[in-house]
Parts: sequence; C-alpha cells; structure tokens
Amino acid sequence: MIYLDHAAATPVSAKVLEAMKPYFLDEFFNPSSAYLPAKKVNADYEAAKGEIAHAIGAKGNDIIITAGATEANNLAFTAISSNAKVLYLKTEHDSVRNPARQFDYEEIEVDKNGRIVLDDLKKKISENTEMISVALANNELGTIQPLAEIASLIREIRIERMQKKNPHPLFLHSDASQAMNLLDINVARLGVDLLTLNAAKVYGPKGVGALYVAHDVRLKPVTLGGGQENGLRSGTQNVPGVIGFAVALKNAKEHLNGNRKKYAEMRKVLLNEVKDYELINKKYSLDNFVVLCFDGLDAERLIYALEDRGVYVSTGAACAASKGVRSHVLMAIGLTESEIAGSLRITLGETNTLEQIHEAAKIINEVVEAEKARISG
Amino acid sequence: MIYLDHAAATPVSAKVLEAMKPYFLDEFFNPSSAYLPAKKVNADYEAAKGEIAHAIGAKGNDIIITAGATEANNLAFTAISSNAKVLYLKTEHDSVRNPARQFDYEEIEVDKNGRIVLDDLKKKISENTEMISVALANNELGTIQPLAEIASLIREIRIERMQKKNPHPLFLHSDASQAMNLLDINVARLGVDLLTLNAAKVYGPKGVGALYVAHDVRLKPVTLGGGQENGLRSGTQNVPGVIGFAVALKNAKEHLNGNRKKYAEMRKVLLNEVKDYELINKKYSLDNFVVLCFDGLDAERLIYALEDRGVYVSTGAACAASKGVRSHVLMAIGLTESEIAGSLRITLGETNTLEQIHEAAKIINEVVEAEKARISG
Repeated sequence: MIYLDHAAATPVSAKVLEAMKPYFLDEFFNPSSAYLPAKKVNADYEAAKGEIAHAIGAKGNDIIITAGATEANNLAFTAISSNAKVLYLKTEHDSVRNPARQFDYEEIEVDKNGRIVLDDLKKKISENTEMISVALANNELGTIQPLAEIASLIREIRIERMQKKNPHPLFLHSDASQAMNLLDINVARLGVDLLTLNAAKVYGPKGVGALYVAHDVRLKPVTLGGGQENGLRSGTQNVPGVIGFAVALKNAKEHLNGNRKKYAEMRKVLLNEVKDYELINKKYSLDNFVVLCFDGLDAERLIYALEDRGVYVSTGAACAASKGVRSHVLMAIGLTESEIAGSLRITLGETNTLEQIHEAAKIINEVVEAEKARISG
Repeated sequence: MIYLDHAAATPVSAKVLEAMKPYFLDEFFNPSSAYLPAKKVNADYEAAKGEIAHAIGAKGNDIIITAGATEANNLAFTAISSNAKVLYLKTEHDSVRNPARQFDYEEIEVDKNGRIVLDDLKKKISENTEMISVALANNELGTIQPLAEIASLIREIRIERMQKKNPHPLFLHSDASQAMNLLDINVARLGVDLLTLNAAKVYGPKGVGALYVAHDVRLKPVTLGGGQENGLRSGTQNVPGVIGFAVALKNAKEHLNGNRKKYAEMRKVLLNEVKDYELINKKYSLDNFVVLCFDGLDAERLIYALEDRGVYVSTGAACAASKGVRSHVLMAIGLTESEIAGSLRITLGETNTLEQIHEAAKIINEVVEAEKARISG
C-alpha cells in the first residue's frame, strides 16, 4: 500500500501509542480525585498540556483541550457577540465555515494560488467585524497564508477603533491543523488570538485537539458540568489522548526540518516523473501537498483505479468528498468545472519512502494512460 | 493497592485496549475517505455504534457518539426550546444541573434513600415543562430511580396535553453513566427519550460517550462542520474510542449477573466487617456502591489515612471533591453537616477481589480507630 492521503488521516505513531498505554491501563485515575496517584495523573495531564502549548510558544493555561479541531473551531467563535460580523477565507474547512455562518458573515477572496486577497479583506472589515478566520495552511491545497501580515493589519484597525471609541474587539483565528507537521508555529510570531490544533493530523490520536486562546479573549463554555478546562469544557479529561497528543507534537517539532526536506524531494520526484498534468498548488504550498489536475479526466475514476493498484489519494477533503460535492476550495481559486473534476490531492507523510513515490508516479502515469485510452477508445 | 473508587474512573480493560490497537496503528483511515480501506474503517465504526446501541435495546442510528457523558448530557438539552421549563432531580451530576440551569428550572426532591419523590415531580410539572432529567443511578449513592414509573407518568401528561392542544413536548432524559456495569438497560423498558452513556465508567476509554435519542426527538447540533453523526456532532470520528466502547459495553453486559453477585457479596463483607458506621445508601442502591458515615470524624482525613495504607476511596464525586464543596447529593437526602463531613464513598469494581475487601475492612477499622484516638487524645 502506498498511502498518499496524510491530510485526511495519519496513523498513530508507535511511540505515541506506547506513551498512551500506561494511562489506559494503570494510570487510569480520575485527574480530579483527591488521592496521590490521581494527583500524579493530573500533574502528567497538565505537563502534557504544557508541552502542547510549548510547541506553539504558549503556556499550558493558554490552551483548552477539546475533542478535536472541529470542536476547537466552534469554541473559537464563542469569543464574539451574536450580532458581530465574521470574515473567513473562502477556502476554509466546513468546521470554520459552518460556525461562522451562524453570524453575519462575508467570505474573503483568494487569488489563483489560494492566497488571501488582502485588499478584499481590508474592504470587508466593517465597524462590527469581530472575527477573522484564516487557516494557516489550507486542507486541500496546502496554501500557507501570510498570517503575520493579516495580524499587523488587525493591529492597525484595533488602534483606529480605540481612537474612535469603537468597543468591538477584533480577533484573528486560525486553524493550524494541516500545518503542524511542516511549519514551526509560534503564536506570537503569527499574531493570532485563537489557534486550532489537531492531534489526529500529527500522528496522534483521533478525538483530541486544542484551542490556543490569547489572554484578552473571553470564551463562553460549549459544555457545562464539572468545570474542567477552566470551566470552558467540562467532562473528565481524556488523559491518554492528551499524553499522546503531546508526544506527537513534540515528535513533529523535532523532525520538522528533516521532514520538510524529505517531502520537498518527494514532491520534486512526483512533479518530474508524473506526465501531462497541470500543477494546481504551484506556490506558497506546504511541501507535502501536491495537487495535480488531469483536465478532461474524472479524478473519481482515477482514485478508484489507483486504489486497485494500491495507491491511495483523494479528490479533496475527506468529509466533502464523501458527500459528493464539488470542492469549494478549487472553485474559489478559479478552476473550471472540468479542472475541478480532474484534480487529485496527494499528501505526503511519515508512512512514505522515496521508493514509494517513484512507484506511485509510475502507477499514476499508467492509470492516466489507461483512462485516456478508455475515453478515446 | 486496593482501589475502591470505580465510580470516579475505571481502567481500560486489556481486551478493550487490544481491540482499539489496530485502529490506532493500521486501520487509521478517515472514515469519510473514498477508498476501500477507509470504507472498511467506516463500516467497523458503524458496526461498533450498532453494538453500543444494541446493548441498550436500540439501533446504531438512534445514538450520537460524543466525547463523553458530559457532552451527551449537554446535547440532550438541545431538544427543547429556550423558553421551556426543565425539571431535574436534586441529586443530579453537575453535567446535568449546569445545562439545566440555562433554562427556567426546578429541582425535584428526593427522599432519605435518594429516591425521587414522585408527588413532588407531579406537582412541579407545568404547562411548559419540556424536559425531566433523572439519572438512572446516582453517582454518589448508587440510588436506582424508578424510571419506568416516571415514564408512565409522562405518558399520561402527554395524552392530557394532546387533548388540551398544548404543543409542548415532554421528554425524559436519564444519565445512565453509573448504571451500565450493574443494570440490564433497555430504553423501551425504561421509557426514556434520551439516555446518556459513558465509556470511561465501563472499562472503556475516556473521552467517549453516547446519547440515545428517540425517533420523535429533534436535537440541535452542538458543533458544526463536516456533518458527521447525522450533522449533530461534526468532527472526524474517534474510531478507536468507539471500537473500545463497544467492546467494553459488550463485556459489561456479559458479566452483568456475575458482577452483581460478586459486588453484592463484597458489599455484605464490608457491612459485616467494618465497625461503627451508619450505612447511608441502605435501599435501592447499585450493588457496587457502599456509602458509610462515620459521624463526628472527618472523611477527608480518613481518605488520606486510608491512602497511606494503600486503600483508595472518595468522599463524593471526583469533580465536586476537587473543589472542596459539600456534596449537594448528601445534603439533598437530609444528612447533617457532620454526617456529610464523615461520609465515605466506596465503589467496587473489576479490579477488586474478595481478599482485598476483607483487607480493606480491616484497614478502615484501624484507620477509624486511630482517628478516634487522635481526636479524643
């Protein structure tokens, strides 16, 4: 099997599972219990939160553990008032688009590379805009957004608002789920107020995520109960999940440079050896994203044919693909219907070797040839 | 170590972890992906949901997977309109009390056994009461509630409402988290419209729960995004967690009768061998709950002294205990301040042997003696 869909899911690394194991079996205590073994579990949990936060240049108290990126994205939107205006990038994931659409919202345009059109953002910010949500790297294209530039624009507007005595806050939220394996993330450098993390995309367990929350942001709880996570997210802590998340993130951080080099090389091999494609994500992309368009062919048919040959790729986000809708991301960058229908998303990851990539390029060529022959046949 | 706090947390059984393992490492695919190995993961996930539902006499489509009981309890309250009235039992867990208090609410009284006072419930149901929440078994006392009787009362009121053309629905919600190891649960027999389940209390993983939802109940989503769980709870499915939950519940179901006999015998040993206590949960209790009051002593001191001797018990719910507040459950059944301060909760579970229980009784007696000597000293 050559798995080339790491943006959809990553396996839990053996090291991560090993770290989680004792917390399933022996260190299973409720972190809120009064006796020492439980207090130790609680300390380990808090230490793991500290490590997760440290990986993005924050402190343990700055993050809220959630059951995944979707919950973290939803939680982020509790920072603003119900009559506020929200702006989000046209290419955002549904877990940003759908909570954003509960408010008065507008979409920020992207250019043909999938990058934010800053002038469009500027134009759309109004008196009562309280939230701007822009993923650090897009989940279908890998496009990296210039968050620091957006943050600097936001700072200017905040100063203006202060002078005009406009009481609306203005927050920058970013979903960093896809970026954590490839970018060295630091919340201060990015200038974000809210940042979403996802364990399941960095070889950690599914069902665990986190939201970084800057000091001046006040959230409202999404679940009420025992008051865990500073009262914002009640429920017995998922101790093994958070332990695993911390190990996974630490691992990602340690291998960042090596992995980038590795993926950049693999990407080059694919671009050299695959024939007759149009590269969709030419610029500003994460090194592990390769989006290839075979205009005139049906990517759905290609992925099934590739699957028969043991190569696993996707047409877009897993959750969108399963609903059979055209990718709103590829539409946003101005692809034609036919280009969208012919686009494959290849996302490289830790399960891949260079040999696999050579082999995958060969198989893709054969499958594309066969499909062309079938059509013209 | 003699762990007697299974109501606070249970270890993940080796069998459960074994079942989860392949879904961490090899069957890690996103259940929404289009290729066959992912579709197989999705099928396994749905099959596990089916088994969880089957354990309570329901179908897979009737349950929504959540990140735990707290989220499930919160989700249950989305079934009603914001101006509805809510009734909940005075002894409910904070994860019911706190969401309920977002509405116009009243508490239903309990008697000295912790059982619902049905006349009080009847009296408090008004025209716009839409939700009644009563845990199947209480988390501090183990008190089992007569849900079928409550459900039958609710059915009468529904008929009355129909005749009077009162459009308000009336739902019965129950948190069954503590009951799953000891009771054979069937949603039809109980007559509930909404039922909360919790993997972490049945030797399954933390961070996984479920809400059973009857066909005529319409919930509102708590998280928006990719549309998983019938659109009610978006986010990539926690596949290993749900696989583990299914195995854990199946296991609980298989050992129900054996465990009840085992715990009943252990309970008898404790009641026979421990000296000079008042038994708080005399009647209607789950067999694995033993709440002992040593009036005049400080249970906090006792649990630390017991911990020194390797015996782990609690004073009440872990999340309440960690905040140092007097138990609202023990207050509700009419205990004095001094009785509450002197009460220990012992909850038996699969980690216990009969030898441990004899030993624990002996140690409790010695610790209580020493504490009495210290006070009178």
